[in-house]
Amino acid sequence: MASIARAHPNIALVKYWGKADDDLIIPVAGSMSMTLDKFATTTTVELTTGLDSFELNGTLADAKATQRTTVFLDLVRRLAADAGLETATASANVTSVNEGPTAAGMASSASGFAALAVAAADAYGLKLSTKDLSRLARRGSGSASRSLIDRFAVWHAGTSDETSFAEAIDAPEMAMVSVTVDAKAKKVSSREGMVATRDTSPYYQAWIDVTHKTLDEMIAACADDDFARVGQITETHAHRMHAVIQATEPPIRYLAPVSWQVFDEVAAMRDDGLEAYATADAGPNVVIICRPDDATAVAKRVAGFGAIETFAPGPGAHLLDAA
Amino acid sequence: MASIARAHPNIALVKYWGKADDDLIIPVAGSMSMTLDKFATTTTVELTTGLDSFELNGTLADAKATQRTTVFLDLVRRLAADAGLETATASANVTSVNEGPTAAGMASSASGFAALAVAAADAYGLKLSTKDLSRLARRGSGSASRSLIDRFAVWHAGTSDETSFAEAIDAPEMAMVSVTVDAKAKKVSSREGMVATRDTSPYYQAWIDVTHKTLDEMIAACADDDFARVGQITETHAHRMHAVIQATEPPIRYLAPVSWQVFDEVAAMRDDGLEAYATADAGPNVVIICRPDDATAVAKRVAGFGAIETFAPGPGAHLLDAA
Repeated sequence: MASIARAHPNIALVKYWGKADDDLIIPVAGSMSMTLDKFATTTTVELTTGLDSFELNGTLADAKATQRTTVFLDLVRRLAADAGLETATASANVTSVNEGPTAAGMASSASGFAALAVAAADAYGLKLSTKDLSRLARRGSGSASRSLIDRFAVWHAGTSDETSFAEAIDAPEMAMVSVTVDAKAKKVSSREGMVATRDTSPYYQAWIDVTHKTLDEMIAACADDDFARVGQITETHAHRMHAVIQATEPPIRYLAPVSWQVFDEVAAMRDDGLEAYATADAGPNVVIICRPDDATAVAKRVAGFGAIETFAPGPGAHLLDAA
Repeated sequence: MASIARAHPNIALVKYWGKADDDLIIPVAGSMSMTLDKFATTTTVELTTGLDSFELNGTLADAKATQRTTVFLDLVRRLAADAGLETATASANVTSVNEGPTAAGMASSASGFAALAVAAADAYGLKLSTKDLSRLARRGSGSASRSLIDRFAVWHAGTSDETSFAEAIDAPEMAMVSVTVDAKAKKVSSREGMVATRDTSPYYQAWIDVTHKTLDEMIAACADDDFARVGQITETHAHRMHAVIQATEPPIRYLAPVSWQVFDEVAAMRDDGLEAYATADAGPNVVIICRPDDATAVAKRVAGFGAIETFAPGPGAHLLDAA
C-alpha cells in the first residue's frame, strides 16, 4: 500500500542563510515563513525490495537526485530500526509531482522534502509528531522544516537535531504576489552560496547576530498583528541577506537588475499609498507581501516585470488518503 | 592680487564611507583613489574687506554653499593668525568654475575644496606642504584630501587632524571609463547616508574592519604592479560598500537597476577576455577601470547605458600663475 503526502513551498519573511551544522542542517539563526496555497508537491512512497527509485514529474530522476532521496530514506529507515519496525530494511519507490513551474525558484525542495518526510514516515510505519516530521524534513532541505506547518511557521534554529524544528505562529492577514523575472535555474546554488558567504563575507557574523534579533522583532510584530511592521522587517531583512551575500569575494549577486526594478516599483507603490513590501530568496525572483484586498492592485503594478502569481497562506504538509 | 588654483576630482578604488570624527572629518578607515585628468575645478581667491563671497560657475552661490565656504576660510584665517600673518582678518572673494557636469556625481566637492585649499592658502600667505594642504582640504570635504595628490593617492585615516592626510602611491597603469546613468542629484547625500549607515547598518563595524584590511591588500597589489588584483579588490570592495549601505533600516540604495546592468556587462567583458572591473560611489553612476589600451573597447561596450567619459590619471591640485 502506498502512502501519499502533499506539501507546499514556503517563502521566508525572515530568511534562512547559513548552516551551523552542515550534516544535520542546523541553521545559524531561526527563520519565519508563510506556507503557500499553490505549487504543491504530491509524493507517493511505496515500500519495495531491491533498490530505491525516484520518479519526478513522470521521469526517472538522475543519479544525483536519486542519491539525495536514498540518503533521506536512510534516515527514515534508521528511525524505523530504532522503533523496532520490520520495514527498516525495505527499499522504496518514490514518485513525486511538482505543480509549480520547474526550477523557477519557488522553493520546490521545501515542498518536496516536506511531502517526502510525511509520505515516507507513514510508509515505513512511523508515528511522528509534526515537530518530529519538521525535524526529519529539515534533514532533506533546511526550509522543508517550515513547509510542515500550516500558514505561518517559525523555525527555531536550535543547537541540535532535537531542538531545530518549525512550529506554527499567528501572523497578520496577508497575501503574497510573486514576480518570476527569470525562470532559469540560478548559477550559484543556495548550498554553494551559503558556503561562500560563510567563508568570505566579512559581514557573516553580523548577519547571524542581526537575524536572531530580527526574528525576535518579527515574532513581536506578529504578536501585535502589525502588518506594516512585519512588512518593514521583511524588506529590510531581505536587503541584509542580499548584502551579506554580495559582500563575498568574488561577489555573488542573486538579484538581477530587473529584480531591483521590482523593489523600486514596490517602494513607489508605498509612496502611492498601496502598502506592499518586497523580499527575494537566493535568486532573481521577487515576492511581494501585501494585504489580501490589495493583491490584485499589487499584481497589476508589477505585471510588466515577469510572470505573476498570487498566494494566500496554505496548509502544512499532510497525508492524503491512499488511492 | 588673486591666487588661482586648479584641482581634479578623484575616484576611489578603496572607498571612504564613514567618519570617526564628524568635525575634523577623520574617516573610520583609509582609502585610495585615482585623480582624474578631466572635470577640473578652477578657483580664484582674492582677499578683500567686508563679507566673504562665493561665486560658482558664474552665479553667486546660495546661503548654504556660501556658509560652507566661509567656515572653510575661517580655518585658513586661523592658520594665518597662528602664523602671525596680517591677512588673518581679511575676507575673501571666491570664484569657482567646475568643468565637470554639475551634480553628475563626479566628485565636484573633492576638486572644489582641493582647489579652494590651495588658492586660499596662497592668498592668505601660508606656505603649506602638500601634506598640510591635504589636511586642510580634508576639512572641507573628506575626499578632497586625495585630490591634492598627483595620479594615485592613499588617504591615511589617521586618528587626529595631524595624522589624517593623503599622499602619493604608485599604481598599475590604468584608465577609467565612467558611465553616467543618471545625472540627477541623489536623494540621500553622502553625509546623510554615512550617518544612517553608522546608526542602523549591522555590518558597519565589519565594514570598517574589512576596509582597513582591503587598503593593506590594495597597497600590496599596487606595490606588485598587479592590475588584475587591483581590479578585483576594487570591485569586491565596491560591492561591500553598497552592501553595508543597503543594510541600513530603512534600506538605502544608491545603485539603480541600470547600475547593476553595467556591473553585469563588466562581468561579461571579463568572460570575453576584456579585463575590466567596476566600482561606484554613493550614487547610481558606475566607473570602470581597465588597461589604457582597452579603454576604447570598454567604452564601446557600455555606451548604451549612459554618458561615457574616459579618464587617465591626472595632476594633483596646484597653483596657476595669476592672471
